[in-house]
Amino acid sequence: MKTNSFFQKAPVVFSLFLLLNIFSAEVYAQIERIEPPFWWAGMETSEIEILFYGKDIAEYNVSTEEDVVINGVLKTENPNYLFITIETKNLQPQTLHFNFSKKKRVKFTQEYELKERKENSALREGFSSADVMYLLMPDRFANGNPDNDSVDGLMDKLNRSESGGRHGGDIQGIIDHLDYIKDLGATSIWSTPLLEDNDKAYSYHTYAQSDVYKIDPRYGSNEDYKRLAKEMHDRDLKLIMDYVTNHWGAEHWMIKDLPTYDWIHQFPGYANSNYRMETQYDPHASAIDTKYCVEGWFVKTMPDLNQSNPLVLNYLIQNAIWWIEFADLDGFRVDTYSYNDKAGISKWTKAIMDEYPNFNIVGEVWLHNQAQISYWQKDSEIGALQDFNSYCPSVMDFTLHDALGSMFKEAAGWGSGMQKAYGNFVNDFLYPNTNNLLVFLENHDTGRFNEIYNQDFNSYQLGLTLMATTRGIPQLYYGSEIGMRGDKGKGDGDIRQDFPGGWEGDNQNAFEKSERTKLQENFHSFTKKLLNFRKNSKAIHQGELTHYLPENNVYVYFREFENEKVMVILNNNEKEQTLDLNRFQENLGRISNGKDILSGKQLQLEEKLSIAGKKPMVIQL
Amino acid sequence: MKTNSFFQKAPVVFSLFLLLNIFSAEVYAQIERIEPPFWWAGMETSEIEILFYGKDIAEYNVSTEEDVVINGVLKTENPNYLFITIETKNLQPQTLHFNFSKKKRVKFTQEYELKERKENSALREGFSSADVMYLLMPDRFANGNPDNDSVDGLMDKLNRSESGGRHGGDIQGIIDHLDYIKDLGATSIWSTPLLEDNDKAYSYHTYAQSDVYKIDPRYGSNEDYKRLAKEMHDRDLKLIMDYVTNHWGAEHWMIKDLPTYDWIHQFPGYANSNYRMETQYDPHASAIDTKYCVEGWFVKTMPDLNQSNPLVLNYLIQNAIWWIEFADLDGFRVDTYSYNDKAGISKWTKAIMDEYPNFNIVGEVWLHNQAQISYWQKDSEIGALQDFNSYCPSVMDFTLHDALGSMFKEAAGWGSGMQKAYGNFVNDFLYPNTNNLLVFLENHDTGRFNEIYNQDFNSYQLGLTLMATTRGIPQLYYGSEIGMRGDKGKGDGDIRQDFPGGWEGDNQNAFEKSERTKLQENFHSFTKKLLNFRKNSKAIHQGELTHYLPENNVYVYFREFENEKVMVILNNNEKEQTLDLNRFQENLGRISNGKDILSGKQLQLEEKLSIAGKKPMVIQL
Repeated sequence: MKTNSFFQKAPVVFSLFLLLNIFSAEVYAQIERIEPPFWWAGMETSEIEILFYGKDIAEYNVSTEEDVVINGVLKTENPNYLFITIETKNLQPQTLHFNFSKKKRVKFTQEYELKERKENSALREGFSSADVMYLLMPDRFANGNPDNDSVDGLMDKLNRSESGGRHGGDIQGIIDHLDYIKDLGATSIWSTPLLEDNDKAYSYHTYAQSDVYKIDPRYGSNEDYKRLAKEMHDRDLKLIMDYVTNHWGAEHWMIKDLPTYDWIHQFPGYANSNYRMETQYDPHASAIDTKYCVEGWFVKTMPDLNQSNPLVLNYLIQNAIWWIEFADLDGFRVDTYSYNDKAGISKWTKAIMDEYPNFNIVGEVWLHNQAQISYWQKDSEIGALQDFNSYCPSVMDFTLHDALGSMFKEAAGWGSGMQKAYGNFVNDFLYPNTNNLLVFLENHDTGRFNEIYNQDFNSYQLGLTLMATTRGIPQLYYGSEIGMRGDKGKGDGDIRQDFPGGWEGDNQNAFEKSERTKLQENFHSFTKKLLNFRKNSKAIHQGELTHYLPENNVYVYFREFENEKVMVILNNNEKEQTLDLNRFQENLGRISNGKDILSGKQLQLEEKLSIAGKKPMVIQL
Repeated sequence: MKTNSFFQKAPVVFSLFLLLNIFSAEVYAQIERIEPPFWWAGMETSEIEILFYGKDIAEYNVSTEEDVVINGVLKTENPNYLFITIETKNLQPQTLHFNFSKKKRVKFTQEYELKERKENSALREGFSSADVMYLLMPDRFANGNPDNDSVDGLMDKLNRSESGGRHGGDIQGIIDHLDYIKDLGATSIWSTPLLEDNDKAYSYHTYAQSDVYKIDPRYGSNEDYKRLAKEMHDRDLKLIMDYVTNHWGAEHWMIKDLPTYDWIHQFPGYANSNYRMETQYDPHASAIDTKYCVEGWFVKTMPDLNQSNPLVLNYLIQNAIWWIEFADLDGFRVDTYSYNDKAGISKWTKAIMDEYPNFNIVGEVWLHNQAQISYWQKDSEIGALQDFNSYCPSVMDFTLHDALGSMFKEAAGWGSGMQKAYGNFVNDFLYPNTNNLLVFLENHDTGRFNEIYNQDFNSYQLGLTLMATTRGIPQLYYGSEIGMRGDKGKGDGDIRQDFPGGWEGDNQNAFEKSERTKLQENFHSFTKKLLNFRKNSKAIHQGELTHYLPENNVYVYFREFENEKVMVILNNNEKEQTLDLNRFQENLGRISNGKDILSGKQLQLEEKLSIAGKKPMVIQL
């Protein structure tokens, strides 16, 4: 439907509009929000649904001045919302003009910009197994701009003495330490969310967002975020946004003036999620349990979005694409992925991947069974059992994480010690793409590895080596590299402590080698050596993995790609072990020497090889 | 190739043969074994490979007097074996005559019978989820014939005082108690193996067989086994044979004079299996680990059969079919199913199922992950990930068994108590056919349920109710029904104790109600009531299962088939619990009353329903 037939693009008419605009200045002011605030020409997602928000905005009729197809005008039960769908296919970058009229008279006009896309934007390459992801919480990493620690209009103010309070970290703090992160050997950053969260407490985690088109001013501005991406790209680093599709904060402006009753999942009274994600595929699940899982709220301050409502889904799709295009992102991490409406999240993910076919998205699928995790990965045959395809390229290897939490404390046994690692990878046949599994020792929701292992440097070396050399995408949690502790049992604050030196006046600046303790430096230099080796090893990025049944708590595996071979040995035995290398003949072939990249030593690989107790070796063959 | 052209079926020739047979009496005696000893006309498996064994038998040429196609004559490196393949298609039941000649002169003739099949033999119905399987160890169940307790020529003699010795139980003992088993409500019997095992010790378990065409004389004769089947069928009971494809005993006559070096898996020196069945599907497994899993021996006294050798495979296929046809069997349980050569066991299973399309075979797949167990079930999509189809209709629900070992001791928790049951069934979407999963509290290789739960009658009621009313085929281990204990930690003998009353002179005869203790009678009468109810409940045999997230350690589920509905409540909470029945609306609909088949009470099902602590209810709606 073209609705611009009446108003032609003649100069005389245009002048008339200008005049009208002046007269309608008062009315014009009633548009409080336009979302997305702008779009781009030449997008695959060319049909966009623009939300106009303002008092009684739905009373207006809308047309465009330009030759633009309006595919739909949607009014909801809330007159403050108007959703206008336009087709931008074949439009050049330009400023469009929406005329808002009553009784056939234009009352005001709203500009809407179609920007020019970055060249090859659609073909951007997401993160991959060639990357190492550095996960940080911006509030807890570094405070680059003390001026934005507290901001008028946002309730939660600076309170660094409170473990659940805002500590002041921000985007500038990240930018200030990009060289540190790059030097460490990470190649990408997953920052927990940065969008505005106006919760009155615990807003620092920022998963209860109040405006999803706006960086929280306590972190910086939208332009700061864009600058972060730019600074990162200048250093060959990739930026991964933590996106939340499942819920918003109770303080979200739309939650406070719902467009439709079913924008969120509502119950008589309050209903919490039962958190039983199994109901999403359990063939025996009762309908009511499935409903409470998907539609119940994650917590009381996080209204659960109804992705089965096309308006909501479309809003979330456009918002996600908007951020990729606006900030020049390299990936998403999606929060509580498997709590979403299954069909909805699949459409959301597919829409983004259709727009950016080489992009990457990693879904948080916190399950303890490989088949169940696989269910949520793109093109999974397990999902296909129920005709489900999430289209989500990457999922998280939570079963490996489960195993990592105890294996280095355990002696050899049928299912203990290094057998737990072996036993995890055995199930790789259930995944459609194991290179796209995120592997991690810990994250911002779990106990810290260096707490569980009491800052034992040996355990860290074993764990990090496994993480950095097995298949998948390693994810390092900020501070691990200096042995930071954090006990989940003491609350989230304890596992999200400030990085020492991120704040002016901190007793210690652990970003600087000169200020690190000996123990911290041990952790750091080991991490740096390993990750920097990994950077250039195609065998580790994408090589075939062959592993051997652990013997005496020693786990041996090989990674091979074209002519590159790497042999990894993890000796989880307290004692030195001597391996009979004949056992590895099928991988070693005629190779008789190699270099342990951790010790830097050249090794003879004839009959036997000894490895010290509780130590890893990474041998380039 | 027809090889009977020279000797025509003329009376005169026949007389000549008779004459020759007399002259060749000495030579004739050299045939020590013929296997299969006979076959049947009209089999789908019409091409059979007959093994003739005798000193230097391979020096003879073989032909048949009748118009029979000899498809192959195979001689191995051992001259004592001759494998003759004949095609029996379209042959009538008859006695065939094989002529063994040297230098074109017939030295002797061997008769070979093609018997007539039982009517509709091919269409026999195997066990199914409509059945309850009673698992017994014949040596430990009842001694019906004390005369065969020790037998000349078989090394292991009666020694009832030894937990690993032979106790004298036998086929007659089973026959004597068929009425007991039927009365209990079981509908089929899985007896652990009965074929000859001439191991010098521990032969009572009978998994190290020395002659797979012969019932161990200490259990009875082949005819006794046939009589067992007949007596069972007369009572509508099904007989399931425990078949061992993976290995034979070191005392097997063929092992002592191997037909071919590669009849079994051989290594320089001895190699034990590493028991890591995961190597069968692990995409990263090293070839050497897979080899040791599949080809290493289960124990030193059990040489590992090489099913990738077509001669071996064919021998095992024919032997299995022979027993079905000979003894009139209703099913197989296959030992150590997942240790076999994958391709080989798949062909073996398919051959049997092709011969008897309605038969059933349950494979012992002792794994702890549903996807991995599913891998081995017929038409599994998990197996299909690697283009594997075992063709094995039924596998064992070992993950449920794992859960049953602790759930009734546990309070409610995220993953404890009744949640363990719920969490098991959640993964049912991974199985191609959950009705064909064997569910069991214990078997002859595990600790006994009533040991783990210290003979707690409440736990038994909960466990048995779950087993008998969830999807699948319940399997009861002999003695469970009288609360028998047995600690795996004390050795296998402890979990395989004699059934009291199975031996003349036993202090107590627990087969008789009058002699059972009060506790034994509690266990028995509960079991009998539940299993006999199950017998006629199609809802439980094949009905849809809908379950509800356990709350307060109470697990509720429904089984529905056509107009029949059963509601099961398992209260694993120590305290009485009152359920809000509104929660179950989607299953209850307008139903407002039912009958608890355990207490016999009529129940009102309006708003609330109370259930005593640690009790089950099975409500017919």
